[in-house]
Amino acid sequence: MEVRGPMSDIIIKNAGYIIDNSLKIYKNSSIIIEDNIITEIGKKTTLPAPEYEIDAKWKLVVPAFINAHTHTPMTLLRGYCDDRRLWDWLSEIWKAENYFDRTVCKIGAELAILEMIKNGIGLFADFYFHQDVVAEISVKAGLRAILGSTILGEEFVQQGGNEFLFEQAKKTIQLARTSELLLPAIAPHSPVTVPQEDLQKSLELAQKNNAFLMIHVSETRDDVLKSEDRYGKPPIEWLNSFGFLNYHKTFFVHGVWITDREVRLLGEHRNGFVYCPVSAQKLAYGGVPPIPELLKNGVNVMLGTDGPASNNVLDILQEMKFASLLISFDRWDPSMITVKDIFQMASVTFRKSYLPNTGLQQYAFADMTLINFRKPHLYPINEHRILSHLVFSATGHDCTDLIINGKPIMIAKKPLTLNEEKIMDNAQNTWMQLEDQIKSETQISN
Amino acid sequence: MEVRGPMSDIIIKNAGYIIDNSLKIYKNSSIIIEDNIITEIGKKTTLPAPEYEIDAKWKLVVPAFINAHTHTPMTLLRGYCDDRRLWDWLSEIWKAENYFDRTVCKIGAELAILEMIKNGIGLFADFYFHQDVVAEISVKAGLRAILGSTILGEEFVQQGGNEFLFEQAKKTIQLARTSELLLPAIAPHSPVTVPQEDLQKSLELAQKNNAFLMIHVSETRDDVLKSEDRYGKPPIEWLNSFGFLNYHKTFFVHGVWITDREVRLLGEHRNGFVYCPVSAQKLAYGGVPPIPELLKNGVNVMLGTDGPASNNVLDILQEMKFASLLISFDRWDPSMITVKDIFQMASVTFRKSYLPNTGLQQYAFADMTLINFRKPHLYPINEHRILSHLVFSATGHDCTDLIINGKPIMIAKKPLTLNEEKIMDNAQNTWMQLEDQIKSETQISN
Repeated sequence: MEVRGPMSDIIIKNAGYIIDNSLKIYKNSSIIIEDNIITEIGKKTTLPAPEYEIDAKWKLVVPAFINAHTHTPMTLLRGYCDDRRLWDWLSEIWKAENYFDRTVCKIGAELAILEMIKNGIGLFADFYFHQDVVAEISVKAGLRAILGSTILGEEFVQQGGNEFLFEQAKKTIQLARTSELLLPAIAPHSPVTVPQEDLQKSLELAQKNNAFLMIHVSETRDDVLKSEDRYGKPPIEWLNSFGFLNYHKTFFVHGVWITDREVRLLGEHRNGFVYCPVSAQKLAYGGVPPIPELLKNGVNVMLGTDGPASNNVLDILQEMKFASLLISFDRWDPSMITVKDIFQMASVTFRKSYLPNTGLQQYAFADMTLINFRKPHLYPINEHRILSHLVFSATGHDCTDLIINGKPIMIAKKPLTLNEEKIMDNAQNTWMQLEDQIKSETQISN
Repeated sequence: MEVRGPMSDIIIKNAGYIIDNSLKIYKNSSIIIEDNIITEIGKKTTLPAPEYEIDAKWKLVVPAFINAHTHTPMTLLRGYCDDRRLWDWLSEIWKAENYFDRTVCKIGAELAILEMIKNGIGLFADFYFHQDVVAEISVKAGLRAILGSTILGEEFVQQGGNEFLFEQAKKTIQLARTSELLLPAIAPHSPVTVPQEDLQKSLELAQKNNAFLMIHVSETRDDVLKSEDRYGKPPIEWLNSFGFLNYHKTFFVHGVWITDREVRLLGEHRNGFVYCPVSAQKLAYGGVPPIPELLKNGVNVMLGTDGPASNNVLDILQEMKFASLLISFDRWDPSMITVKDIFQMASVTFRKSYLPNTGLQQYAFADMTLINFRKPHLYPINEHRILSHLVFSATGHDCTDLIINGKPIMIAKKPLTLNEEKIMDNAQNTWMQLEDQIKSETQISN
């Protein structure tokens, strides 16, 4: 692996609790990071000349959190025309998105990446246009990013047609090769908004480049009905008919209305599945994906926040609570899903399947989040309660430090790689002026 | 009103946004508090000799949040045997609760009140035994508290019978008269766990003393079936048959499975109703109370966290998000409830009906929470997005300052009236030792 820029030796001393990639719990132990590799988890408490020495007596150290689905530039639409029905809301969002040029996307993505850092997220899968700006900011920030360049059917594209989108996607794939932090992806929007020809082209492009393939699927009942109407099959079955499921780096996102047969297909192919509980509730899709059955069938279930306009935050710790509670509610049974299942979706499932040499274990590239548990809402605490506290009581605000690829990204709540004040001011000044313009030009009332 | 102890003059300068009791928004304005009264909301920025001067440039000031239902001592059971079915879970909780003597209740309540202060909650309604310790700590902490002394049917009471519980309730009512911060209540557990005679006695006691009357109702389907089986009517209808609804200070808690007819009855009588969305999901009661209909019928709907064992936090800001999303999800329609409806449930509905001279308006006893919005997850911000940000993006962690009855309770995240470190240590040391004992004596496995 190529080493970029100066690496730091870090010692995390006497951590209250450590949870490693395999969910083993260590009490009062230390972590040594040399260059970007964890060389030891144990009782050693000295290192010759560490660049950072973190006293972690009141801290819990976990593999960094993963946000497996978002649309980073959309932070700018946080709280924009809430409380509306899906199509009403979407139509307002789309009008505003017409103004999302490269500069606007950059300002939105910066705000999103800053927010994710503060919430202890070390890797995110983005799904939007202008992934070159997302790449630029992720690398600057030091986060790992899956760059999902969106493909849409011709009729939805404003300028340049979808040839232009495929060009962008190819450029994104090239770009992802320039940093060890970046992972390429191609992101066809959905089986009902992208024609079969372009879906196949996307699949081939992904396979050829060993890129992730991410697609929204069966998000609304209408998605399923349209697919059955057009192709005689529900979306995942139809995608399977031309090889989508054979590719192990395919992520199906949402899947609120998938069938039992589709669950089994996903299991047989060991695909990725991203559950976004907050967004599904906020936009009122009405259903809950069959997570217990997906897990039982061996599907790689992960958690995503979805875009900030439909959440409205990028906090995987909060998402864990929503994920667990919605399943308990839906099944009338709190034992259908455990806090261990939920924590895995938020932190280690992705690594195990796709990036096993990262996270929190000896000889892994060090990706970890430190959480301050010396707070009233996390007491009392012991080994048996840690996962419950992470799922039901902690939020991203409790994350204090973030180390990705051995590099400190946030220390004691202070982001080291991005200018927090400047990013917030940029988002406020640029967007609010633009919002006035959009509202006057499109007659949106708030 | 009697003045207790020294009062402080406070000036909150140049607040980014202020939301008053009637939800009017002020931009870049100041608040003057003299003794314990708000004397001005406006542009004045000087006060002769303020004891506290708070620069609120990046802050949003709102009437202090209200937690309308909790069981404070149960913080000690936060994360204790999660992921179990309702009766399984309850049976473990009850075994542990046998060890909740006065001392244990005090340690738990201290932790709960500390947590609520940090989350910007200025008034809470408790529902548990040993309310004398809750009274002691609330007054020390400076929070307003509704002291709900529990009444249970004879068969559920371990020692002393329920005569003892009525004695306790009477003492609690006396105690509530000793401080302007305390409000008395009597809390019969539920229509299925308390016999009619004792329910009537509770109602009379409440009316005679102008106390609140709080009762869990129609929490599970079984509650409704039992009531119909025994009394030929669902719980609220039955309670109405002997006058419970005629008393305007009655709060019905949970009401997951109430009927349309019961909604109308509650509306006609302008009763209080407490919605606890997290607990209903965590314990998987399966339903959602008809909140839009309750609001339409004029019921005073408020939010509660329920006890920390079934949540597992005491954070009304988080509860707002769960409250809104669960209704959108249940109705397949995000327009059924607005962020304004939700914010009112969390902050001003209680005041309007029961304590109109408190909160955030001129000449009110000053009860307010300051929220730092200079954070990535609350940007961009403007007047149109504030309520959305409060409901969907903020959490209790964003609350920085709390002023209750004109007295600073927390300033810049530091609680002034309670010893944070000592309370966490007490909870940890006392309870964890006791937990080992409980587990060995009752064969609970974790």
